[in-house]
Amino acid sequence: MTVTGSVEDRVLPDLDFVAEVAQQLRVDGIRASTRAGSGHPSSSMSAADLIAVLAARHLRYDFDHPRTPNNDHLIFSKGHASPLLYALYKACGAVTEAELMTYRTFGSRLQGHPTPVIPWVDVATGSLGQGLPVGIGVALAGKHLDRLPFHVWVLCGDSELAEGSIWEAFDHASHYGLNNLTALLDINRLGQRGPTEFQWNLDAYKNRVESFGCRAIVIDGHDVAAIDTALTDARDERERPVVVIARTIKGKGFSEIENKEGWHGRALPPDMAERAIAELGGVRDLRIDVRAPDPGEPAIQHGVRPRVELPSYRKGEKVATRKAYGDTLRALGAWPDVVALDGEVSNSTHSEEFKFAYPDRFFEMFIAEQQMLAATVGVSVRGYVAFASTFAAFFSRAYDFIRMAGISEATIRLSGSHAGCEIGADGPSQMALEDLASLRAVHTSTVFYPSDAVSAAKLVNAMATAPGITYIRTTRGAYPVIYDNDEEFSIGGAKVLRSSDNDVVALIGAGVTLHNCLAAAAQLAEAGIAARVIDLYSVKPVDVATLREASLVTNGHLIVVEDHYPQGGIGAAVMEALATDDPPHIEHLAVRGLPQSGTPEELMAAAGIDAPAIVAAARRVTGMTQEG
Amino acid sequence: MTVTGSVEDRVLPDLDFVAEVAQQLRVDGIRASTRAGSGHPSSSMSAADLIAVLAARHLRYDFDHPRTPNNDHLIFSKGHASPLLYALYKACGAVTEAELMTYRTFGSRLQGHPTPVIPWVDVATGSLGQGLPVGIGVALAGKHLDRLPFHVWVLCGDSELAEGSIWEAFDHASHYGLNNLTALLDINRLGQRGPTEFQWNLDAYKNRVESFGCRAIVIDGHDVAAIDTALTDARDERERPVVVIARTIKGKGFSEIENKEGWHGRALPPDMAERAIAELGGVRDLRIDVRAPDPGEPAIQHGVRPRVELPSYRKGEKVATRKAYGDTLRALGAWPDVVALDGEVSNSTHSEEFKFAYPDRFFEMFIAEQQMLAATVGVSVRGYVAFASTFAAFFSRAYDFIRMAGISEATIRLSGSHAGCEIGADGPSQMALEDLASLRAVHTSTVFYPSDAVSAAKLVNAMATAPGITYIRTTRGAYPVIYDNDEEFSIGGAKVLRSSDNDVVALIGAGVTLHNCLAAAAQLAEAGIAARVIDLYSVKPVDVATLREASLVTNGHLIVVEDHYPQGGIGAAVMEALATDDPPHIEHLAVRGLPQSGTPEELMAAAGIDAPAIVAAARRVTGMTQEG
Repeated sequence: MTVTGSVEDRVLPDLDFVAEVAQQLRVDGIRASTRAGSGHPSSSMSAADLIAVLAARHLRYDFDHPRTPNNDHLIFSKGHASPLLYALYKACGAVTEAELMTYRTFGSRLQGHPTPVIPWVDVATGSLGQGLPVGIGVALAGKHLDRLPFHVWVLCGDSELAEGSIWEAFDHASHYGLNNLTALLDINRLGQRGPTEFQWNLDAYKNRVESFGCRAIVIDGHDVAAIDTALTDARDERERPVVVIARTIKGKGFSEIENKEGWHGRALPPDMAERAIAELGGVRDLRIDVRAPDPGEPAIQHGVRPRVELPSYRKGEKVATRKAYGDTLRALGAWPDVVALDGEVSNSTHSEEFKFAYPDRFFEMFIAEQQMLAATVGVSVRGYVAFASTFAAFFSRAYDFIRMAGISEATIRLSGSHAGCEIGADGPSQMALEDLASLRAVHTSTVFYPSDAVSAAKLVNAMATAPGITYIRTTRGAYPVIYDNDEEFSIGGAKVLRSSDNDVVALIGAGVTLHNCLAAAAQLAEAGIAARVIDLYSVKPVDVATLREASLVTNGHLIVVEDHYPQGGIGAAVMEALATDDPPHIEHLAVRGLPQSGTPEELMAAAGIDAPAIVAAARRVTGMTQEG
Repeated sequence: MTVTGSVEDRVLPDLDFVAEVAQQLRVDGIRASTRAGSGHPSSSMSAADLIAVLAARHLRYDFDHPRTPNNDHLIFSKGHASPLLYALYKACGAVTEAELMTYRTFGSRLQGHPTPVIPWVDVATGSLGQGLPVGIGVALAGKHLDRLPFHVWVLCGDSELAEGSIWEAFDHASHYGLNNLTALLDINRLGQRGPTEFQWNLDAYKNRVESFGCRAIVIDGHDVAAIDTALTDARDERERPVVVIARTIKGKGFSEIENKEGWHGRALPPDMAERAIAELGGVRDLRIDVRAPDPGEPAIQHGVRPRVELPSYRKGEKVATRKAYGDTLRALGAWPDVVALDGEVSNSTHSEEFKFAYPDRFFEMFIAEQQMLAATVGVSVRGYVAFASTFAAFFSRAYDFIRMAGISEATIRLSGSHAGCEIGADGPSQMALEDLASLRAVHTSTVFYPSDAVSAAKLVNAMATAPGITYIRTTRGAYPVIYDNDEEFSIGGAKVLRSSDNDVVALIGAGVTLHNCLAAAAQLAEAGIAARVIDLYSVKPVDVATLREASLVTNGHLIVVEDHYPQGGIGAAVMEALATDDPPHIEHLAVRGLPQSGTPEELMAAAGIDAPAIVAAARRVTGMTQEG
């Protein structure tokens, strides 16, 4: 399509026309969902007027060039209103009638809930309460990094306002002064299984939104003039994020279902659809001529890659891998588009190394891990190389956001510190013991767990250019550097740190347990037992060839040692990798009970993942139980 | 200890004495943490006055009998203030000086953050923003189930007010009229790495709290008289939850660290501790005589177990396992202490079957999965048999809460519907494809994935009496009932549905893929290939003996088929179980890419987990690639 007009010469379509467009969006949403036999037409009908006015008179977007820097962003946080979104795309000339009719069919990009398979969709939505927080990240980038006047419009449902993540979002939106963001709240009173908590109590929403520092504008969401004024005010606002609280009617425009329970997530049967279309004035083919964005370039250049001087460490020196994360992040700051976020623990994760060096590209997310994740995705939508950090345990708070980032196929980088029982005295609430299982199972994820500062630095550097979700697990305590600074590490790699043709057993560790494996191998060597030691720093994907060779040499005697619960972690990664081989016997040392407080040494001993436990396992596995 | 006095004859300790107690709590918190060499004394000192006044003049608690029905509940949502909590226990005579000095040492129950290893601790805290939502659950039980006048007091830090879960909690507290709950907000201005978002802007908190329907009382948190009045008002409040917003000073009482950055999570060095103790007036040994609770019994009897008539199904009839969940939950409602919660999708998860039958014991949590999980834990603290349900994908929203419930060793039951790509047209945002990995890795978890209505009913029934976190994964679509109603199913069990001594391959499925395995086996049989079929309905723990036998009979030819990503799911469960045997070759069919919309059949075919894919794998594995 061709976008024409500019702010000067453009005549806005009048509101009567826009109201007709809204009816078309309703009709097309019904047609698409009835044809599919599923979908959410009623939830689309309530917001049709809001979206029609927005698209016809306020949105600035070039559908032919979705990467245009100054394009507005339109995010459907209520992703189930996809019939409305796709009907809009048709009205804008971006998809054809024929494609619209492929809604929800296998092979169509017009899926049940939007994903970035569609070029005009920034992020996958459908898990409620996520589109707005991601929009905060996009607006954060627009205002504080790009410094471009594009606007972020987010359509929210009323049911999702019960999600705490929405309030994290409003909080951060006002904290960061995101006047470039407008949330449209489609208050249609009815959720999936019945009335929402507040139904049409718009004051309840208004009071909350205002107390969270946003400007609230309450309107009738079917009054196109009122919508138009609200959106004008929203774009003109200079200080605060704006929240348009729109009273709407679910199923608006078709009297048989208007404001009635039992019509959530149900396509109309064909006969009802026919009556609905008739009541809505029939099928139309109106076209919205969406205004093109003004020209503009981001204040920060993307893709400029000055040489990064990675930190170097002295072999034997004790350095925590979390410190190496911070050092490397600071070094990567030489790239102008590298950005860091943290959940109020930057002095623990060491992201503060970056913060002190590049305060303008560091965002404090406070203790709001969901918003941190969403903002990381949001700035990545704008092309930034975003790293987020908190304790590894607390990424579990944002697991649904990580899951959805996988579905978005977003490229983001996560650093989780304080992994495992190794953390010691703080106790189990602060120990990540299930992060490898949960993160490995996410679509697109890469999982690293380095044992020393050199490998950590190299892997953090690799994360900067890796696609998908890369996760690095770091350790609280400082352990000796074991690699030379010129050693190379790669996605899917592993290191054999000790080996011989006589190896009767292989000890496989990563992170802190690698050090325990090395100590165990030294003790076993004194007893005449040759043990291979493998640093499995890349937990996903794993180095199958190295594992296979170890299995071959040792006649299938592998010991995997991990500071993690037994399910789904490094042990499972090794087993999955070798499942179709002649699979080895795998002795698996992992944390099998609930740890408590204590020193790292006490806790690793109690869990049976320290050097003596590894030595005992090696003796058991090899049958060499005699001393010396 | 002996608790004496009653409301009539009891003379409350005067406020001068209480202020001295507060100083003692500060001193003891410093002594314990300095001795441990770690901990959070400064965060304890800010709240010492609040806690001293509460314990000495308002709390009603029998430390000798923590299960007394009418005991108040005291939850430290800011779990890092454990020095204060443990100092309080000492002041109440519940722990000795000697035990206090074991703080954070290996083997001590006085861990870095509180856990229910301590009999007076309801739930583990330390992941911020969780204690208050759990408190909502406890108060919900008190007000709407027990109907007892006990009060729930929750101490919150200011940093954790950034968590959305806190706002889900205030929202639900006011929605359910929980005047029996008081949150004490310790606004000490400083977080871990510096100032909080709002520092001492108490109005910001007041406005938010009030907009969320709570009564706010703003005080100076070091003015014992003001605290006392506020707590009296809080207990007397008849309508709303009360939030006491207390302006406090971090490190209060020791001038060298008062209101200074850099003292979060740091024990004072011994020399500083000495000066601090001197400034605080030295070591004391004052005793708080906590008022005993009034007698009272819950309105609902616990442990009464009338016979449950489980639903029965006709073999061959198509019934969704989620429907069987709802039917069985309704049947279990015969037990007066069974309670259900749902996240606004009860018509999808089928928990509405229970809701319609027992509306007084059903709690609508709206779309707030974190609060739902926390409330489930909270009602379990009060002894209820609590079941929570939502889409399996959306339990990922509450993963940190599930993790912490594991650390609490709470007994709760979770039902996740709409698992896997089988759901069809709604697309990947609604598909749980990592739930088995993430749930298996949680401490205390049991994971079920039944394939038909009979097994689902039996397993839901087993969940009612199982300890720890039990999770059942249910399927959207309706599939044939394959078991007789008198078939038994158990934790750690499996069913061999088809077997012979000539089996050359075993097909292992669960849930929807079991049906695909059965279809594949029938096809293979026609081609003269004998395939064993195993229903691995108990995914954690798995039935090792049955798997082992299948491996033996088939000479190690296993095929595992799951509607889940390849990492950490059923495949890993099988591999982990057999790792130290002579491990079999395991062909693993799982969802390896990002699914889209489509029919269940299309999506399972695309993922390679349908019957034809299983047949092909079986031919490949057995080398019998010729047609029949």
